[in-house]
Parts: sequence; C-alpha cells; structure tokens
Amino acid sequence: MKNSYWIWYPGDFELYHAMKQNFSRVERGMGWPAFWKSEGFRNRVVFRRTYQLQEETAFTVYSEAAGYVLAGDKKYPFGRKITCNPGEILVSVHAACIEKFPAIYIEGDVICSDGEWLVEDYDKPPVQAGYSRYFMNADQIPSVWNYDEKRYEPVSVEETDGGVLYGFETELTAQIEVRRINGADNTKKIEVFCGESREEAVDLEHCYYSWEFDPVTNRTPRCAVRFAFLPQCRKEEMSVSAFHQYVDIPVKASFSCDDELLNQIWAVAEHTFLLCSGIFFIDGIKRDKWIWGGDAYQSLFVNQYLMADPDINRRTLLALRGNDPMTTHINTIVDYSLYWILSVREHYEAYADEKFVRQVYPKMVSLMNFCEEQLDEHGFLIGREKDWIFIDWADLDKEGPLCAEQMLLAACYKAMAAMAVVVEGSVCTASAAYNEKYVELVKKIDQFYWDNDQSVYMDSFCSGKRHVTRHANIFAVLYGIADADRQTQIVDSVLLNDNIPAITTPYFKFYELDVLCRMGRYAEVLEQIKAYWGGMLARGAVTFWEEYDPNVPDEEQYDMYGDKFGKSLCHAWAASPIYLLAKYFAGVRITAPGGERYEVKPQMAFFRKIDCTVPVGTCRRIHIYGDAQHVNIEEIE
Amino acid sequence: MKNSYWIWYPGDFELYHAMKQNFSRVERGMGWPAFWKSEGFRNRVVFRRTYQLQEETAFTVYSEAAGYVLAGDKKYPFGRKITCNPGEILVSVHAACIEKFPAIYIEGDVICSDGEWLVEDYDKPPVQAGYSRYFMNADQIPSVWNYDEKRYEPVSVEETDGGVLYGFETELTAQIEVRRINGADNTKKIEVFCGESREEAVDLEHCYYSWEFDPVTNRTPRCAVRFAFLPQCRKEEMSVSAFHQYVDIPVKASFSCDDELLNQIWAVAEHTFLLCSGIFFIDGIKRDKWIWGGDAYQSLFVNQYLMADPDINRRTLLALRGNDPMTTHINTIVDYSLYWILSVREHYEAYADEKFVRQVYPKMVSLMNFCEEQLDEHGFLIGREKDWIFIDWADLDKEGPLCAEQMLLAACYKAMAAMAVVVEGSVCTASAAYNEKYVELVKKIDQFYWDNDQSVYMDSFCSGKRHVTRHANIFAVLYGIADADRQTQIVDSVLLNDNIPAITTPYFKFYELDVLCRMGRYAEVLEQIKAYWGGMLARGAVTFWEEYDPNVPDEEQYDMYGDKFGKSLCHAWAASPIYLLAKYFAGVRITAPGGERYEVKPQMAFFRKIDCTVPVGTCRRIHIYGDAQHVNIEEIE
Repeated sequence: MKNSYWIWYPGDFELYHAMKQNFSRVERGMGWPAFWKSEGFRNRVVFRRTYQLQEETAFTVYSEAAGYVLAGDKKYPFGRKITCNPGEILVSVHAACIEKFPAIYIEGDVICSDGEWLVEDYDKPPVQAGYSRYFMNADQIPSVWNYDEKRYEPVSVEETDGGVLYGFETELTAQIEVRRINGADNTKKIEVFCGESREEAVDLEHCYYSWEFDPVTNRTPRCAVRFAFLPQCRKEEMSVSAFHQYVDIPVKASFSCDDELLNQIWAVAEHTFLLCSGIFFIDGIKRDKWIWGGDAYQSLFVNQYLMADPDINRRTLLALRGNDPMTTHINTIVDYSLYWILSVREHYEAYADEKFVRQVYPKMVSLMNFCEEQLDEHGFLIGREKDWIFIDWADLDKEGPLCAEQMLLAACYKAMAAMAVVVEGSVCTASAAYNEKYVELVKKIDQFYWDNDQSVYMDSFCSGKRHVTRHANIFAVLYGIADADRQTQIVDSVLLNDNIPAITTPYFKFYELDVLCRMGRYAEVLEQIKAYWGGMLARGAVTFWEEYDPNVPDEEQYDMYGDKFGKSLCHAWAASPIYLLAKYFAGVRITAPGGERYEVKPQMAFFRKIDCTVPVGTCRRIHIYGDAQHVNIEEIE
Repeated sequence: MKNSYWIWYPGDFELYHAMKQNFSRVERGMGWPAFWKSEGFRNRVVFRRTYQLQEETAFTVYSEAAGYVLAGDKKYPFGRKITCNPGEILVSVHAACIEKFPAIYIEGDVICSDGEWLVEDYDKPPVQAGYSRYFMNADQIPSVWNYDEKRYEPVSVEETDGGVLYGFETELTAQIEVRRINGADNTKKIEVFCGESREEAVDLEHCYYSWEFDPVTNRTPRCAVRFAFLPQCRKEEMSVSAFHQYVDIPVKASFSCDDELLNQIWAVAEHTFLLCSGIFFIDGIKRDKWIWGGDAYQSLFVNQYLMADPDINRRTLLALRGNDPMTTHINTIVDYSLYWILSVREHYEAYADEKFVRQVYPKMVSLMNFCEEQLDEHGFLIGREKDWIFIDWADLDKEGPLCAEQMLLAACYKAMAAMAVVVEGSVCTASAAYNEKYVELVKKIDQFYWDNDQSVYMDSFCSGKRHVTRHANIFAVLYGIADADRQTQIVDSVLLNDNIPAITTPYFKFYELDVLCRMGRYAEVLEQIKAYWGGMLARGAVTFWEEYDPNVPDEEQYDMYGDKFGKSLCHAWAASPIYLLAKYFAGVRITAPGGERYEVKPQMAFFRKIDCTVPVGTCRRIHIYGDAQHVNIEEIE
C-alpha cells in the first residue's frame, strides 16, 4: 500500500486556513478580522492522472465535496470501490464545494492520491496537486487542523478579587477545561477570563478573553492563556485544567553555555517561537494572531536555526501571497510584499527547495511586475493611495520615495536574479535583466540618498531635511548594498552613533543586531541581548514580548496602542536571540543552498563552555561542544 | 421605522447562490457540479456610511460574520443596541466569513441597512451594497433562500411494479413527504424514486433521483418530480405528499383566444417557465439545473412578456458574469459570453434599469476586451484552446472563424454602443468607437461570408465548402445585420428553403420563429407552434421538453445524450410560445426603454376572439380584448 495524502488545488489549503487564522482574533467579545484583502480558495476543481496498469487494481475515492469519479468512460460515486482492468486508464475526480476547499483522498495499492496528481480549476493550465504530511488518513477533514494536545494542571490556585485565579507554569495556547466539583451549584453561570498576565486575568473590564465554556466538552475556545480567572467562585467548587493545543514541529537545536542567563534567554525564546509557529508563522498568540509578511520573514530565520522546518515556511508563504492577479500589497504594506520575495530566497538558501521556487516563481514575477507599476521616473518605488509604506514604527521622513524601501527593492532584484537562475538555469535573460535593474537602482540610491559628508543614507531626498534614521543604513549593510568601506563607515556614523535615534522595536532590533554581528560587533550584541531580553526575564517574562522598555514602570509594562493590556506578551519577532546565538555565536552559517556546504566558527572568546546543536538544512545537525581551549564540531543526523 | 435589508458586497449573494445552484445537479446518486470556473464571493468586507443625525438615535447590527461595529471611534459587538448623539457620525461595519458571503442587517429608525451603504473588499474602490427584496427580516439568513411552499396531494395512487406509484397533477420542484400509516413496519428502509415521467419513476436502474427521506422532517431533498415511486410498499402502508418549493414571482400576463390548443400551449409554457425561474433562470429543473448564458438570454425575453421581473434578470446576469478579471468564457462558451452583453441590453430595453447598467458596465467593457484579445487579422472572433464555439447542436462548418459568431459579435458592438450612451451620455467616445467597430465588422462579414449567388451567409470562408446553415442567416435578420433587401432574400433562400437543414433544437427554433415573425410570416409560425408544442401536448406533456421529435416512437421520447431518461421534460427554452404569442400575435412591442413608449398591433387575422394581458415594463400592463371586428386596448395598472 502506497502512502496516500489528502490532495487539493495547491494553495487552497493555505488560503483557507489563513482566513481561519486571520479571522480568529477576538478582543473583549468582538471579532477583529484582519483588515486586508482576504482571498478565497477554489470551489470547483478536477483532479486527473493517467495510469498504466500492469494488473487489475482497485481504489476508492473519499471526499466531502459534491462530485464523481470518472475512470475511463465510467462514472462512479465517491466512497465506492472501483476496479480497473490492466492497461492505460485516465482517472478524473470532479469535486465542488462552497464552504471550504474541495479535497479528495484516494485509497488504493496503485491508484492513490499524492502530489503527482494534476489538478485544474477551469481557469489556468493544470498544476500539481497540493498536499500536507499532516493529512494522510482517509478519516481526516483537511479543513480542520488536528492539533496535538498536552494537558497542564495549574501550578497555583489562589482565591482573589472575589474569585479563583489559576496560574499555569508558562503561557499556553489552550482550551481551559472547567469542571464543577460534586455539590457545586450546577445552574450558576461560569465565566472564564484568560490573561497573558495575572493583572489582565483579574481585570474583568480590560481582559481580552472572557468565555463561557462549552456545556458538552466543558472547554473554552482555544486562546492565549497563562492565568485563568473564575469570578465569583471558590476553590472547592471548580476543577480547572488547560489543554495546550499546538502543531508538533520538532526542535532540532539546543543551546547551552556557561552563562545561565543566555541559556534562559534561549529557552524562553524557543518557547515563544514555538507558540507563534502553528499552521503558520503568526505575530503573537494573543494579538494579532495574524500572518504578517514582515514578521514571517524574520520567523524564517529563526526557524532555520531552531526547527529547520520547510513546511511551515511554505504554508506561510502561500498564505501570504494569495492568488494572481496581485491587486494590493501583502497585508496592505509595500515593504511586506518585498519581504515576501526575500523570504522565498531565504527559504531556498536554507532548504534548496527548488520545487517550491518553481511553484511560486510566476507569483514572484507578478508581484515584482505589480511593484514596478509604481516606480517613479528614477525607478524608485512609491506608495499608491491606500498603500502602507511601513518599514518600522519610527520617525522616518516619508516625503517622496523612502530610502529604506528602495534598499528592499534592490535586494528583491538581486533575489529575483538568483531565483530566475534556479528556475531557468544559469544562462537566463530574466536573471540578467534583474541584475541590471539592481545595478541601476543601486546607482540611483547612491546618487540620491548617500550623504558623503555624514557618511549616511538619508531617509528622503525630497523634503530637503536630510533626516537620518538607522533603517536604510541597516539595510545597506544587511543586503550588501553599501560596499565594504561604506559598511565600516556606517557602523560609526550610524550604528554606534547615539545621535541617531535608537531603534525602539524588537522587530527592527532583529536587523540591527544582525548587522552588528555581520560587522563583528559581537560584544555589543551580546551585551544588548542580555540587557534587553534579560530585562524581560527580570520582570518575570515566561515568553518574550512584542516590545520592552526598561524605563516604563512595572504597572504600565503591559500597555500598548493606548490599551491597558494591548501589548502582546508572546511575540515571534522577540525570538531573535535564537538566530543570533546560533548563527553568530555558535557560528553556523550555510554557504550553499540547503546546507550542502556550511561553515562553523564558534565565538569562543565569549564562552568558557559551550554545548550546542544547530540544524543545517533539513537532514543534518551540527553538534558544537567544548571550552575556550578546545571545541569539537561534529555532524550528527 | 425605515425599511431595512440584508446587505452584502454586490454580486456576492448571486455568486454564492449560483454555486449552490450549479453544484446541485445530482444523477443516480452522484453529484455533477457544473464544469466551468466557479467563482467565490468575498470573505472580508467593510460597510460604511456617514450620517448627519438630527437627534439621538439607536441601531443594532446583526450578522453571522466575525467582526465589529465602529460608530465614530467606539467599537461595539454585533447584536448590541448602539446609541448615537446628534451630529455627523461615520458608521463602519467590519465583517468576515469563510463559508458564505459576509452580510449584515441594521435595525434602526434612522441608521438602517439598505442599498445606499458603501461596501469595500480591500481590493477595489467602494461600491454600493447589494440587497434583495426577499431578505428584509433580521431573522433571515441570506445564504439560505426561503422558498414559498405549496402542498400537493397525489392525483393518482397505483400499486405497480411491486410498489406504489404516486402521480401529481403536474411536474413540480418538490420535497416528497412520506409518512408511515399507523401499523406500518417502522424499521423498513423506504426509498423514494422521483421521475419526470411515469416510466422513469418505476425504472429503478435508470431513474435520476432516488432518496431516503429525512427521519426528522420525513421529507426527501427538493427535486423535479411528477411521479414518485416507493418500491416494495403497499398503498395502505404509506401516505405521500409533495411540497412544491418555488420563488414567488407574480405572473403579469394572460392569454386567451378562441383556439383552445393555443390557450393550452400558453398555460403549459407558463408552468414550464415558472418552474425554471427560481433564484435564477435555469435550463431545466431535472437537468442540468445550471445557469447557462444562452438559455438565460432567451428566458429574458419570456420574462419580459410573462412576469416582467427585473430582479431575476439581475440575479442571473450577476451570477453568470462572475468577477473580474475575466479569464474564461461564460460557461466556457464564446457565444454565451456574447449573449451576456446582449442580455444587459435587453434588460435595459425592457426595464430602463440604468442603475444596473451602470453597475455592470465595467464588466461589459472587460468582457468585450477579453473577446477582442482573440480577434484574427480581419477582426473575426476565433476560439482559443478550451473555448467552446457552440451556437447550436447542428452540423456547422466550424473551420476558421464561424459566421454566426461574428454576427453575435457585431450585435455586441451595437449593444455596447447603446449602453455606453446610457452610462456616459450621448456625446460619448466609447459609443462612437463601438459603432465604428460595428460598421467595420459588418463590412468584413459581407466581404467574407455573403454568397451573392445563393443569397446566403456561409458558415465558413476558410474551408472552401460554402456550407450554409440557418444560424448565421437567422442572426443576420434578428440583429438587423443584413439590410432589408437581403433580409427578404434570406426568407426564401434560407428560412423557407427545405434544402437548408432544418433547425432541430427548440433553442434555435426560438430565434427562427422570432425572425419569421419579424418578417411577417405569422401563419407559418402559428402553424409551427401548434404542430411542435401541440405535438408534445398530444403525447401527454404537462411541461415542455428540451427537445421533441415527432418521428421518434413514444418509448424513446425520453431518451437523450444516450441516456434513457436523459431528456429534460421541463426546459425553459421550450417556453418561447409565450414570447411569440405576446409580442407578435397580441402584438405588444416596447419602443422606448422600460416601455415608456410601446405599440400594440394584435394580429386579429388569426383569432376570432382574444383576451390577453401583457406587461410593459414593471408598472404597466396592456389589456387587449375583442374579436375580429373590434379590439379594445387598455392600459391597466
């Protein structure tokens, strides 16, 4: 018996589950669906495959869709065993569904469903079917994700604020199960307030989540929770457990050194990142619970060094990009469209996933074409009405084209040139054309944005303000747009220059610390990691936060966007220490796609002892252990 | 209290219900969803409206979607009464839904939901919301159509073929209710076979529909049924009723003359047409149950003279056209795309529905652009791979561009020129451009297809066969492409020429009889109506058939497409006598859009007595009654 998968039109699975994800945000009893174009899956498809049968064989097609099977010229309903004679036979499976994407499962020794089937949507030419290793059983329903589940009992139970507060050992994405203990009043309405912090859980007015539990399962909906509060209850009335629901993506990395603070930062970053890595990379588990292109781009880097799971990359990238034609930017943000291009390249570098690049290359091209429709006379990318030129929450001078945006565009040209070669081979006019655009654009960037006196890239050349922020300069180093000399200048003129406003978000801190590492400023980076992430730990963080300002008093730490508990306390982009420690301190760097070649240069000046494992591609891991005198490096499977 | 409607993104309602319709075909236990691109509704929309409130007012938003209400800068959940102070206020309603289109209902004295709201899909600029007069109550669900229902008891009950056959007075679209009479074996599995004919119902192998009834409601699914057969049952065990479910569209026409056969043809055509006019115009109620552009175009004409209901036109046309960008032809058929353009024009002529024309005009333009991408060097429309050049089930010479297809294209240019004026006013460059294209194309048609010796339009100029069919020639008259002289020639050279193969489908018979009427050949038309439709009546028809061939023996009359009961016995296109009798024999013709002007010329040479009512536009009806000596014509409301 061969392995069968549920199959669908490629991308449909991701588009459907992405909508579920992006529509799942809830805030104080109100749904808050993501505010961008949300695209549908297909409703009518046909799967086809021709077999050369050596002998008689039988198969059965399962589907919840409306449709039928055509084997040769005979029609059969779903669910019935079909026997075919030897010889050539074309099997077509017609399927239509409105509420969810049509999917089929074929059970059979020879004829069975996998990614080799072609599927057509009556619009574009046939393509290979989509599938997932998580859906290989006939009795599954691909529109329902089967989470793994782990039961947690509270580690603290406390009567307070007129109710009972249950604390768990860490933050979870869990359903809370509430059971009345014998004798407790059965008619009493029970509300469950779930908080990321103790303060949130007991604040009935401002707490994000309050649920009644399902009378059949005794469970609340799945949500971010560290503390669960039951108002107007007493300890002896109720029994409370949490059922943590997660996607089981094995961790392939470990980090241990003589500095316990760093070890703890790694552990908490790992937990944070796993919580935010479900069906997709999401920004945070309480808020927004959305799939953002910028956040996902950073998650790709952490994934490479923690789980090395290409599947979640693929799911996230397919979900973000949606269908052609492209009519609006990803998440409405121009930079996030550009990160998507860069993400595909990063994915390829990490896993040498040529098949995926081939699959999405047409969408890369159409995305680039869409962007190129909004270039000005110099070839600079400018926002259209309703486009969001984001880059960062910072005081950027956005008059006219923004320098940081052009840096991203240049990086995209380079990425496109590289991916064109993957798809079309090294003698490739598309690649040459993108390279040419890259050279042209970099010339223009130099001409318009580089300030030779200050040795900086300015935000804008239109406003005349000659305003400088770190962002464009960070990108200039990150993407190698500035040459080696300039990169060195930028370190002093910008990165280590206290007159240039500091980066305030962990989101951009990610890039800044990356760049400092690239420039060999390991000591500064290590210091910042310990101060910033260590600072959160000192405040009792069990997961890393969306933002942290050591100068804000404790009682205002959870405040953001003018909302008392608005800050996400478990945010993917705060997991960057994993990437930084693994790549620059354990020193593992891929030098050929998929890790076919790599280098390992642990920075033993900073450690007395080290024992780390770092994945390289999907199949190999590097074990680095030793002390300042001697370090062992071995490849393990 | 003002009137509130459920509102949605315009077209979403139609696209959703069209999929339900087109996926509802069932054949012997197998779903048979329509084999063309089936497009989705939107999943994420926002409704907006600014009010200038004179005084405090309250409103409540209802929706099954995920989302919230933003009134001013305050957020509210659905279902909660919101009170606003006097002054200007912007109300936004955010809504997301995966399984069906997001829809909202707002109850309030001042703030309430109707077609004046704007709605946005995060893709295109805001547009006016869609709504339906059938959905005006908060407790409705716009994804579920509430059919009107009428109970029918069987008019015959007969033990036969080992079971019981229940006959109804006519064909219905009904749920069959089956109740066990006291004492009947409760454990016995009951199957219900529903047939359009007695022969079909008792043929357990070939009958299209066999159901088990729902144990709660005791009803089968809704389907086409005249006879219901319960095998292995006895009369005294069961009680059977039919619940006919229909969309109540009032009939505004009546026809009565001294010829009872004609009266009966009208009555049966009316019943046939009403059965095929539900949420949409469908081809037939047993098969295909699909929305076809060609069939719908003809239904438009009958509707104008029977129900004069613009709503079903709008629903059908929105369903057929789908979303932009247009990437495949309507129903995959090039001619059906062209009929869609002609349909909009007919709709406008009948109801002066400028608002609808404005709404769909951009889609008319993009459809025409799509077609113009497939013109050859002469400007002739040719099929692409997978395009279906249909015209009719007939032996057409389809080598190279087909003449009949060019006739339709020419008619579309003319229709576009007219609709451009409606939208943009009479000084309109778009209109002039379409007119120019019309003139150019007609010139080319003359040059390449007109055979001066035979006085005919040939099918093809490429094959060299000089093959002539009726189709192009009928269109040349129907759309006034041939001048008056040629039209007269065509009557003799083609229409009344027995050497030209006869039209065999009632579908094209519709156009042929129309053209014969236009050419004043009333006697021939009346004779054909009586022979063809009268022939079906003589064979016991209670609804008119997809096809009828008097030469086929009785026992093969239901055979079609190689399927013993494949023929649809209730097919919309067979209702054309209504159009012909009302327009040409009662003689009511609209001469200005919406019936602002019209003419009435009853053909009293064919009647000794007449008493007819014919709608003109949506508000007026013409009552024509009298005899050969004197006819009264009055406008009634």
